[in-house]
Amino acid sequence: MGKGLNMLKECLVNVRTRSPLVHNITNYVTVNDVANVLLACGASPIMADDLGEVEEITALCGGLAINIGTLNKDTIPAMFAAGRKAKELGHPVVLDPVGAGASKLRTETAIRLLQEIRPDAVRGNISEIKSLVFGSGSTKGVDADVADAVTEDNLDGAIAFVKEFARKEGCIAAVTGAIDLVSDGDRCFVIRNGRPEMGRITGTGCQLTALLAAFLVANPDKPLEAAAAAVCAMGLAGEIGWENMGPTDGNSTYRNRLIDAIFRMDGDTLAKGAKYEIR
Amino acid sequence: MGKGLNMLKECLVNVRTRSPLVHNITNYVTVNDVANVLLACGASPIMADDLGEVEEITALCGGLAINIGTLNKDTIPAMFAAGRKAKELGHPVVLDPVGAGASKLRTETAIRLLQEIRPDAVRGNISEIKSLVFGSGSTKGVDADVADAVTEDNLDGAIAFVKEFARKEGCIAAVTGAIDLVSDGDRCFVIRNGRPEMGRITGTGCQLTALLAAFLVANPDKPLEAAAAAVCAMGLAGEIGWENMGPTDGNSTYRNRLIDAIFRMDGDTLAKGAKYEIR
Amino acid sequence: MGKGLNMLKECLVNVRTRSPLVHNITNYVTVNDVANVLLACGASPIMADDLGEVEEITALCGGLAINIGTLNKDTIPAMFAAGRKAKELGHPVVLDPVGAGASKLRTETAIRLLQEIRPDAVRGNISEIKSLVFGSGSTKGVDADVADAVTEDNLDGAIAFVKEFARKEGCIAAVTGAIDLVSDGDRCFVIRNGRPEMGRITGTGCQLTALLAAFLVANPDKPLEAAAAAVCAMGLAGEIGWENMGPTDGNSTYRNRLIDAIFRMDGDTLAKGAKYEIR
Repeated sequence: MGKGLNMLKECLVNVRTRSPLVHNITNYVTVNDVANVLLACGASPIMADDLGEVEEITALCGGLAINIGTLNKDTIPAMFAAGRKAKELGHPVVLDPVGAGASKLRTETAIRLLQEIRPDAVRGNISEIKSLVFGSGSTKGVDADVADAVTEDNLDGAIAFVKEFARKEGCIAAVTGAIDLVSDGDRCFVIRNGRPEMGRITGTGCQLTALLAAFLVANPDKPLEAAAAAVCAMGLAGEIGWENMGPTDGNSTYRNRLIDAIFRMDGDTLAKGAKYEIR
Repeated sequence: MGKGLNMLKECLVNVRTRSPLVHNITNYVTVNDVANVLLACGASPIMADDLGEVEEITALCGGLAINIGTLNKDTIPAMFAAGRKAKELGHPVVLDPVGAGASKLRTETAIRLLQEIRPDAVRGNISEIKSLVFGSGSTKGVDADVADAVTEDNLDGAIAFVKEFARKEGCIAAVTGAIDLVSDGDRCFVIRNGRPEMGRITGTGCQLTALLAAFLVANPDKPLEAAAAAVCAMGLAGEIGWENMGPTDGNSTYRNRLIDAIFRMDGDTLAKGAKYEIR
Repeated sequence: MGKGLNMLKECLVNVRTRSPLVHNITNYVTVNDVANVLLACGASPIMADDLGEVEEITALCGGLAINIGTLNKDTIPAMFAAGRKAKELGHPVVLDPVGAGASKLRTETAIRLLQEIRPDAVRGNISEIKSLVFGSGSTKGVDADVADAVTEDNLDGAIAFVKEFARKEGCIAAVTGAIDLVSDGDRCFVIRNGRPEMGRITGTGCQLTALLAAFLVANPDKPLEAAAAAVCAMGLAGEIGWENMGPTDGNSTYRNRLIDAIFRMDGDTLAKGAKYEIR
């Protein structure tokens, strides 16, 4: 096992050993799965989104995941208040700009969170990340330059884009899709774990965002490797979960099998199953 | 296979081929299952309920499902704004008046949505539909005339009631229960798919409402058949899901099996399994 | 079968026979499981949390479960309004002070609900109950006296604490953990059902709170036994669910298996599997 694979193993083991407590301000669609996937990996979830308590709650935790999936006028100020407090305390903050580009409210909130909170990591699909860079209005015009889906054909350009985003924002960028890219602006993990059927389950992205927060909290000295380990773990769980599917199983059972695979995954399984190169 | 069965098959195939994007303003109890059942049938879900973005979000989508299951002072105005915008754009709108009759807020909101938005389809149980017709106060007094459960004994009266409702409101009425009735005011599909155990899972009605929206979007030229296909598909999934239950399985596993059955269902299975007559 | 075991059996049978309707003002993390576990035991759930309807909704129901897991400025007044109305009508009210002690908002809201609503039962872990007694600020200082986890070693002190809480508040106290304590201030059921892996599923506590409400509504003449039966049933379901786990199953499947076990549980299974003593 190479040094890199040992590193991924260590990142997962640290999550299981250190049991980080993660504060989630997240959407009500996938929140139950987010809580269960955190428990599956050995972390603990707390969900709280009222402005009257988010600073206190986040102060109790090791890190914060902000997911704007069903943002509203009450939870947006809570996201900012919790984000500021978490950063003040040196806790890792992960931003998931769900649907950035789909409405002004989402795009502008995500951009403001990025600029004012300075999250430690941002996880989204390539379109969402592009909306953070180019804004809502300009998204379509830019689609020609950086294709929305990261493929083997446009990989070089996508890596350059993700590295630049990470460098400019001073964060880890985790851009997930058929090929996942995780960069700190300098190096970029190109990860080829996962299954296309994961897109038929709601919330695999939201779950990964929460895992990412847990991995960052448990591995403060190596954030890039921690983020890559979380992304590999989620993709690998998608592969293992799919192998465990029976002939009448569909996406609802797959959802369970995927979280089950995180629950059962040990460091050696992750090290053996992770498929990545560093660019 | 008769023309009608081919029609149902075609409706499902169109959903899988056209992948309609459905905007859901729905309750937080069953929202995850609603998202997964839409993904299971080949559609895509978006959930958004803040007044600040619902018009933009619904404009991106092909149709809108409004479910008042956990309505509140913030989401009610969002339901009206999204509904008006969707209608303005010619998108199908489905209303699920969950619990109409149980509180003034629910009854009045549902009636106002019906009158002001003019949804393309309304899906509910017979009691909820009656509350839309007679209001909260008068519900009990009318129970003697139109019995709450649709049975073989009162079927003629129930069909007449549902047809009249659909005609008067200019919409498709999908009244579900032990026997399901789907009418456009002229014809009425009497559907006998389903299992009584579906009532032991929370949210099968909410899931059907979302499916209905997806089927209407993907089949704009035959809304009645599309609605009947969605209702048959859901009932048939309940039957298939129940067949796949093991001796220690209960309602939580049944919930998964039902969505799995939608995921696996192809047009021929639907055409073969659909049980209906047209009255 | 002793008298006590027959009593537990009768309590479950009454829930299945009388199908109580339970109003839940609960958190959006575990709400779907709460609804499904109520359906699993033979009860029916209604979720509603808007101030504009909670009094009407709770009046339709047999009992009310208030869970502060994701409380906010809009739902807190609804909790008080529903609680007052339920008590006025003589309906059992159960309070779940989720996270009391973690923020001032939670601790103060829970204490005010306890004092102003006078719930019939309170269910929480020992830390949450201690926060109701000693407040947020003093929690740490008291940890030395009453250890947070109830173990065989500190059992006598924990029983005395729970009895005193129940007596002082005039309610049933259900304090759950590795060992569960259920007391009316006079007697205390010491229950040793359950599995440690239940802590790896989000929401087993929330589910129990809802079950507790259903059992109290269906057994108005023996609230202590009803509460003990609910706690034994949940723990036993955790044991049965775990026995039904396969080699690749994890916490997500366990979540389903647990609710399935409630669905399948009959009175004899409960009577045979319940492990308790009365102190």
